[in-house]
Amino acid sequence: MIQVAVVGSERCDERLYHIAYEVGRLLAERGCVIINGGLGGVMEASSAGAKLKGGLTVGIIPSDRKEDANQYTDIIIVTDMGHARNIIIAQSCDAMIAVGGSYGTISEMAIALKLGKNVVAIEPEVILPGIILAESPEDAVEKALKDLSV
Amino acid sequence: MIQVAVVGSERCDERLYHIAYEVGRLLAERGCVIINGGLGGVMEASSAGAKLKGGLTVGIIPSDRKEDANQYTDIIIVTDMGHARNIIIAQSCDAMIAVGGSYGTISEMAIALKLGKNVVAIEPEVILPGIILAESPEDAVEKALKDLSV
Amino acid sequence: MIQVAVVGSERCDERLYHIAYEVGRLLAERGCVIINGGLGGVMEASSAGAKLKGGLTVGIIPSDRKEDANQYTDIIIVTDMGHARNIIIAQSCDAMIAVGGSYGTISEMAIALKLGKNVVAIEPEVILPGIILAESPEDAVEKALKDLSV
Amino acid sequence: MIQVAVVGSERCDERLYHIAYEVGRLLAERGCVIINGGLGGVMEASSAGAKLKGGLTVGIIPSDRKEDANQYTDIIIVTDMGHARNIIIAQSCDAMIAVGGSYGTISEMAIALKLGKNVVAIEPEVILPGIILAESPEDAVEKALKDLSV
Repeated sequence: MIQVAVVGSERCDERLYHIAYEVGRLLAERGCVIINGGLGGVMEASSAGAKLKGGLTVGIIPSDRKEDANQYTDIIIVTDMGHARNIIIAQSCDAMIAVGGSYGTISEMAIALKLGKNVVAIEPEVILPGIILAESPEDAVEKALKDLSV
Repeated sequence: MIQVAVVGSERCDERLYHIAYEVGRLLAERGCVIINGGLGGVMEASSAGAKLKGGLTVGIIPSDRKEDANQYTDIIIVTDMGHARNIIIAQSCDAMIAVGGSYGTISEMAIALKLGKNVVAIEPEVILPGIILAESPEDAVEKALKDLSV
Repeated sequence: MIQVAVVGSERCDERLYHIAYEVGRLLAERGCVIINGGLGGVMEASSAGAKLKGGLTVGIIPSDRKEDANQYTDIIIVTDMGHARNIIIAQSCDAMIAVGGSYGTISEMAIALKLGKNVVAIEPEVILPGIILAESPEDAVEKALKDLSV
Repeated sequence: MIQVAVVGSERCDERLYHIAYEVGRLLAERGCVIINGGLGGVMEASSAGAKLKGGLTVGIIPSDRKEDANQYTDIIIVTDMGHARNIIIAQSCDAMIAVGGSYGTISEMAIALKLGKNVVAIEPEVILPGIILAESPEDAVEKALKDLSV
């Protein structure tokens, strides 16, 4: 299965929440598994959107309690590794879509780029070399899945 | 979803392979997600058994290549963390069933026991305090799921 | 430098504390670096003993705060990885000495044994295959350093 | 002890090597412990510089072999965690100095910034928000140690 990470901040405004929701929905329509950090904000939004279309969602959570995952998470990976779980997300995805995001998101994008993956960003705080910018959820999903056999 | 870890050695004889296969099959029939290390031997067997019944399988692999997971793995978590992935398996499961196994399996059981989970073992190399012994795949699944709301 | 792990429970009685203290003191006299989990009990005791002789101590702590390390720790490695830091301890040592200990200690010994290291135990709760038993701090240090060029 | 991370690429030109060497030397003169990734390039340079002044150096290596650390490393932490060791470096330091560097370095800076540490960069590839730019090794060390009780 194609595993696409959707990353971004745990707290986000309604507009970014909606964008992440749409990204999750579109990825599920394309048959992709959603991988994210399993908490609130962009993570919750992308999983909620995916579940609307019956998608499968995986939350790789930083804490030691399965209960910390949001309610839209099907599979919960309990790392108890804090920020190091960002690295596992970057490694486990076939492509990554970032919606806004700050330092944590930057660490995830940096490692995914180092690993040669498509990293697409909507409204990034910083433009890393090699990043692919997108204007909309549709655009982001299209660019993320380019060259992947979906 | 109830997530049950099935752990054991990467190399095992046909008899243990068959036992692990049956454990996976029975867990899938009960609607459980299978979590394991994603490689060969007991890991492969439990996922193969689960897939026979349409179960969902998660492989938390030690290496950095998604391709290293066996073909019966649906969701692949790429840790690139070697033995430390054992800890993630122990933390992510609601209960654990060990089939044979050596040092790696012992580390997984020790941490799952520390976390207060049901840890059931078929033919363990070492009897850790608190471990629950089982005689058969049916017995193991029954004991592992005891007190879980499956 | 030869790096020797001293492992055991965070809470221990006075007798085990004294044994761990002696182990730390003797290792420092032999010029070894002490590696442990950086918290209380056996960890604190072994570092305290080592500091008496001017030894160098490394605490690989499970939390995210340098302040959590005991006062006898020179170098603090902040993993924020909970039990997964046990694996880093097992991998970073050239030999391991366990003083008492429970599940966490078992996980550390299991991985160190898997990696082929000398694992010496004083009053272990469980006898793992390959473990070397010791009767006293002197005996433990002697057996741990066997075949290492100290 | 004050622990300062020096981060940057495993391969670097002679000029960056020299800068990292000077950073290591100056930190050792100030009594700081050097923390880095333990491999070549900027990591080796900073440890080599520190050893010239009798400094203490800690290499948090990504692989599973102590032998992979460069010869200027006193304490070797064997993570076998690939890129996730970047997070441990960011967490274990009191301040960070980056010399050049690419994606891996960006991930380290992002997490150190998230944790509120002084992150000083000489010739960074990307300017992250909150980063402190430095013109020379002297300038970098001065800025990194600002507000730390060295």
